[in-house]
Amino acid sequence: MRKASIDNPIRSLYWSDGVLTLLDQTRLPMETVFEPQESIEQIWDSIKQLKVRGAPAIGIAGAYGSLYGLRTSGEDIVPSIRKSADYLNTARPTAVNLSWGLRRMVAKAEANESLPREELLSLLEAEAKAIHNEDRSICHSIGKHGVGLIKDGMGILTHCNAGLLATSELGTATAPIYLAHDMGVNFKVYADETRPLLQGARLTSWELQQAGVDVTLICDNMAASMMSEGAIDLIIVGTDRVAANGDVANKIGTLGVAILARHFGLPFYVACPSSTFDRDTATGSEIVIEERGSEEILCFGERQTGPNGVKTRNPAFDVTPAELVTGFITDRGLITHPFPENLASAFFSK
Amino acid sequence: MRKASIDNPIRSLYWSDGVLTLLDQTRLPMETVFEPQESIEQIWDSIKQLKVRGAPAIGIAGAYGSLYGLRTSGEDIVPSIRKSADYLNTARPTAVNLSWGLRRMVAKAEANESLPREELLSLLEAEAKAIHNEDRSICHSIGKHGVGLIKDGMGILTHCNAGLLATSELGTATAPIYLAHDMGVNFKVYADETRPLLQGARLTSWELQQAGVDVTLICDNMAASMMSEGAIDLIIVGTDRVAANGDVANKIGTLGVAILARHFGLPFYVACPSSTFDRDTATGSEIVIEERGSEEILCFGERQTGPNGVKTRNPAFDVTPAELVTGFITDRGLITHPFPENLASAFFSK
Repeated sequence: MRKASIDNPIRSLYWSDGVLTLLDQTRLPMETVFEPQESIEQIWDSIKQLKVRGAPAIGIAGAYGSLYGLRTSGEDIVPSIRKSADYLNTARPTAVNLSWGLRRMVAKAEANESLPREELLSLLEAEAKAIHNEDRSICHSIGKHGVGLIKDGMGILTHCNAGLLATSELGTATAPIYLAHDMGVNFKVYADETRPLLQGARLTSWELQQAGVDVTLICDNMAASMMSEGAIDLIIVGTDRVAANGDVANKIGTLGVAILARHFGLPFYVACPSSTFDRDTATGSEIVIEERGSEEILCFGERQTGPNGVKTRNPAFDVTPAELVTGFITDRGLITHPFPENLASAFFSK
Repeated sequence: MRKASIDNPIRSLYWSDGVLTLLDQTRLPMETVFEPQESIEQIWDSIKQLKVRGAPAIGIAGAYGSLYGLRTSGEDIVPSIRKSADYLNTARPTAVNLSWGLRRMVAKAEANESLPREELLSLLEAEAKAIHNEDRSICHSIGKHGVGLIKDGMGILTHCNAGLLATSELGTATAPIYLAHDMGVNFKVYADETRPLLQGARLTSWELQQAGVDVTLICDNMAASMMSEGAIDLIIVGTDRVAANGDVANKIGTLGVAILARHFGLPFYVACPSSTFDRDTATGSEIVIEERGSEEILCFGERQTGPNGVKTRNPAFDVTPAELVTGFITDRGLITHPFPENLASAFFSK
């Protein structure tokens, strides 16, 4: 099961000899630059600038980053890692996985405060590696539970980037794709470019191309045409949060893809780790959708493409109702309808 | 009925004292430059470069342009206008309206070859003006037949640019919008940006903004979200060709909008002149869809956003099946189901 990742040298990040190296995602797809991080300030900046992005990847980067704060200081480890965690957290204050990873590092230090300094430092490096390895293992499990959906000759549509670039490796929506590719299944992937920020064009089509997957980049508004041609047999997307009833919050445009899939009778799957299921959110209507600025709609790189002063809407996410979702591909298996019951028994009863 | 156009000084083109002036649409939305055309070569270039675009507008520009060829030449008028028409036609050889307008000018000259030179020149200028005025009249009729669909408080979604910039004035899909605005109806328009060439961002949102219409620009993949919020009550789009059964070929993305409209139970109207109905095309499956180059998908202005060498699909149009169309807003009235019968009696029996 690890062959897919061995064949593909691309990682969002790696840790080696005490150095965190990040793939600078802001320079993709034109330049592949791996940037060794030399200081905690540089890591803060890399998180801030989205050189590393995707909830799992920034959680891991934060955990490794907190270790940097223990090197230059003569202070005791616990106050020092608390300070580092507080500092790194300000790079993206709304990123739940970043603060989760940092809290876990602080908690580990606090629980082992009485250990000798060197021993505690080793334990903390092991904790960061554990956060990293757990994500790797989750992505592999998602891949393993989804790979059976992919058959020879299929066309698979994905939206945005729920790929290896957002995680430690394999990704979530892409994990079944990488594993199927590694097993020699013959299929095509269609990647929606995903306006306004073009994660599909810049990231998904790039990472699949690097791995040798047969990928075709399309504009978001071409998905219906591809489906009507019969080019698409399966849709797999990621998600930011799943409500207890199975409603799915994901990148803007996901709802439209789900409606098209229903119209054409195509299976629509959502791939995600168990941690994405939120028992405290009853339905998607409780999820507040971030509205982003006009400049993403009016400009493209250096070029302005919309008129000065025109109104825009720019919701970053949309909510796909549970009834449009065929199933969830998770690290604990494939979850199908009825969702409230099956989600509760898989995720909320433990 | 003309007040809407009087209030709005924007035109794709106008003719005054023997000079054709074009609004340079390649510089929108950043610069509003009206460019008087000084020679037939300049007009050829303006058509080629898409400074003037939209089937009706380039038909009119071609007709006026053919008059330029009669000035510098000492030749007889008929061979001279034939030569001008052949020349202008090479600027966009696949543009049906361009060759239609030019053929009409040549035919007029041929039928009146025996007239004195000055008289024939006057007749030809009158013919070009007639082509222009007929389009104006068609757009006003479309507006008149569609304006009743627009009620206070509505949100209207449109896709691509079937606006005044593509015609002589008022546009097709936008004609009911301009007339309703002029009558003081209070409504909002949502304009899809329309990747890859962004006609919605660059042209539709700009021309509606110029006219004082309340317009909001969105990315194509946000339409589903707007509908699920209840922001959209009515969809009006244009079309390039309608088959005898009512299947509609239009800019890529139209099919997706129609499917979303059906999902949310919203009326989906197609606005077009009678000439768009093609009795010789039985169904949409006979329409060959132009596939355009990768660079439109991979690049945006000067900036490359997709990876080198990645495959793309770039169909310029899609076909919306007749069953997803609520009705056609035409210069001969509102046409509703059953389409084969109602289209035949309105357009094919004359």
